[in-house]
Amino acid sequence: MVSMSADSLLAYEQQYRSALLDDVLPFWARHSLDRDHGGYFSCLDREGKVYDTDKFVWLQGRQAWMFSALYHRLEQRGDWLEIAKLGIDFLKRHGRDEHGDWFFALARDGRPLVQPYSIFSDCFAAMAFSEYARAAGDAEARQIALDTYRNIIRRKDNPAGRYSTAVPGTRPLRNFTLPMILTNLCLELEWLLDPEEFRRDAGGALLDVMTVYRDPQRNLIFENVAPDGSHVDSFEGRVLNPGHGIEAMWFAIDLARHWQDAATIELATDTMLDILSLSWDEREGGIFAFLDAEGRPPEQLEWDQKLWWVHLEALVALLMAFNSTGRVKCWEWFQKVHEWSWGHFPDPRYGEWFGYLNRRGEVLLNMKGGKWKGCFHVPRALWRCSLELQAMAVRAAA
Amino acid sequence: MVSMSADSLLAYEQQYRSALLDDVLPFWARHSLDRDHGGYFSCLDREGKVYDTDKFVWLQGRQAWMFSALYHRLEQRGDWLEIAKLGIDFLKRHGRDEHGDWFFALARDGRPLVQPYSIFSDCFAAMAFSEYARAAGDAEARQIALDTYRNIIRRKDNPAGRYSTAVPGTRPLRNFTLPMILTNLCLELEWLLDPEEFRRDAGGALLDVMTVYRDPQRNLIFENVAPDGSHVDSFEGRVLNPGHGIEAMWFAIDLARHWQDAATIELATDTMLDILSLSWDEREGGIFAFLDAEGRPPEQLEWDQKLWWVHLEALVALLMAFNSTGRVKCWEWFQKVHEWSWGHFPDPRYGEWFGYLNRRGEVLLNMKGGKWKGCFHVPRALWRCSLELQAMAVRAAA
Repeated sequence: MVSMSADSLLAYEQQYRSALLDDVLPFWARHSLDRDHGGYFSCLDREGKVYDTDKFVWLQGRQAWMFSALYHRLEQRGDWLEIAKLGIDFLKRHGRDEHGDWFFALARDGRPLVQPYSIFSDCFAAMAFSEYARAAGDAEARQIALDTYRNIIRRKDNPAGRYSTAVPGTRPLRNFTLPMILTNLCLELEWLLDPEEFRRDAGGALLDVMTVYRDPQRNLIFENVAPDGSHVDSFEGRVLNPGHGIEAMWFAIDLARHWQDAATIELATDTMLDILSLSWDEREGGIFAFLDAEGRPPEQLEWDQKLWWVHLEALVALLMAFNSTGRVKCWEWFQKVHEWSWGHFPDPRYGEWFGYLNRRGEVLLNMKGGKWKGCFHVPRALWRCSLELQAMAVRAAA
Repeated sequence: MVSMSADSLLAYEQQYRSALLDDVLPFWARHSLDRDHGGYFSCLDREGKVYDTDKFVWLQGRQAWMFSALYHRLEQRGDWLEIAKLGIDFLKRHGRDEHGDWFFALARDGRPLVQPYSIFSDCFAAMAFSEYARAAGDAEARQIALDTYRNIIRRKDNPAGRYSTAVPGTRPLRNFTLPMILTNLCLELEWLLDPEEFRRDAGGALLDVMTVYRDPQRNLIFENVAPDGSHVDSFEGRVLNPGHGIEAMWFAIDLARHWQDAATIELATDTMLDILSLSWDEREGGIFAFLDAEGRPPEQLEWDQKLWWVHLEALVALLMAFNSTGRVKCWEWFQKVHEWSWGHFPDPRYGEWFGYLNRRGEVLLNMKGGKWKGCFHVPRALWRCSLELQAMAVRAAA
């Protein structure tokens, strides 16, 4: 391991923890709570003012999870549990259709707006109810988490259902996102799953991630592959989402730590570093949002933008990988991504982080939350980074 | 009317016509034809090399329409008709499902890839078959155009059908795009529709565009409104698509010319100029892709990009409005948009126009065609601009 003083590690740790506790959590606690209808506002402008009142189930679930997890794993603060409950109660009352599938979006008062076309609404709801059940000892929440989880597993081979626009048979593709999310979700729900169920689902998802979607020659994660794992020469088959790949590698490390599987930790570290090398913008700094694996023009018009979550998940991945493997390259990359991220995303004036920067690192959307950015990637990453730094500092001091 | 010499108008006319005939059409004729399977490649890189072979029905229809129209209305060149036939035959053979709805995307060999979720596939197919029927005197094409058109009218109140993710009833919205396209499509198909049918459909669409989606206070076109035409405070309800609004105004002028309706021409001109003033980027020049009507952060991450079609449709709209109204402001705006567009979009090295520039006008996607850009907006606009300039020059000379 790189020689590094406990003091310098603790200085980093202090930076991440203080941003979490003194800036980011207070921002959401102050601005996002809907005391009239329950749930959270996620569309907050630069100052924190609500500019749209729709409620997106991804973000309702994620914020309820975040405050439950901090209560349960960091500090039993009553206000955190109360914030979690605000989202949980709203979701319990309004979140599901008659099949138990989770809507994508709800109006401020809870009336359903957008059908359950995205299985990730269900994933983030399951995560929220599981963590709230643990935090509050709530048996009903526990049951909702379990029912939702098993419904996801039932739907997993055709998650879009009737909303899928692919013509069956012509070009079958398997998508990476659900296996990726499952590696994380299974670990979140491990405490309430049958041991056999956990091993089967988590192990299956991890195997998919590392052997089906990971290209062993190029050490990259592909978003879509043929059923046999081979590449398909089409927009969907060529697209790389570096943030997805990098985040998935820390999910893999997390699960591999649980199983004490050192080989998977090494492989995930290698892959994460190779994704990062490929997707780092040498001209302007930062990590691209999308790339075409063959260097052709990507379909995504936002391909060169610098997105908050990509950089935050990279920081988590690099510290986890460094902490587990001691490889110098991880620490060097961490410092580089840390400098760029802290130099561009945080808003010193009104707090929290901007989400969407253009290629040059200038603010593209003058806001702190919207349809896809809520109280999740920023606080989760700050928290996880501080945990890794703390563990490293303890070891360095010993 | 602004005093303007026939010579200067003819110089502009020469610039547009020569770009059409000596650059843009040869580029597509040279690079896009699939002699093995029929149809056209639209994914062409900067040099014109094919980088993806999927065939998008919007773009197949649009290119077949373009070459049919030029054959029928500009010059009866056999190679143009033959290019049109290549797309028409491919679409006839592979384009429709068992209900006569048009697929969104086909594989290179014609196998269907993406279901008929977009009614605009049908719109561009109808336009193509109608124009080819006129160009080639093809009775089967005429019937396909008519069947497709009537199928669109049948589906028009629920165009997304089973692919719609809106929960019925909570927040009903009417979308601008189909009425907008119908104002153009009806005029294209006027020769084969019953006169009563033409008057009803075209008149209804024009009335919708000018009175339901146009806000009379702000003189702007909204993409989505409540059933009674009022505004809805949501992402969908606030979004402005300036290119859509501007293009729709020339469709309106076109139809109003047909009906000799001077009042609508004036109103469309006013609206187009107000949209342009609002959406012109004072800092970098060019027209924004999306804006939020209340100045809130738009949902579209590409909101500040400068897109080829927006600028080309603005050039057409400004010349049509100037030609019809003689208002100086139209000519001044035309010169401004002309300078910026010709200064940024054309590729002097390999021909044709880049499609996607960033806010500063730098190339964002290094290509000439893709999933949404094909042989359509560039040649149609160059052609229509040259027609308007010609008419103005003749009048100036008289």
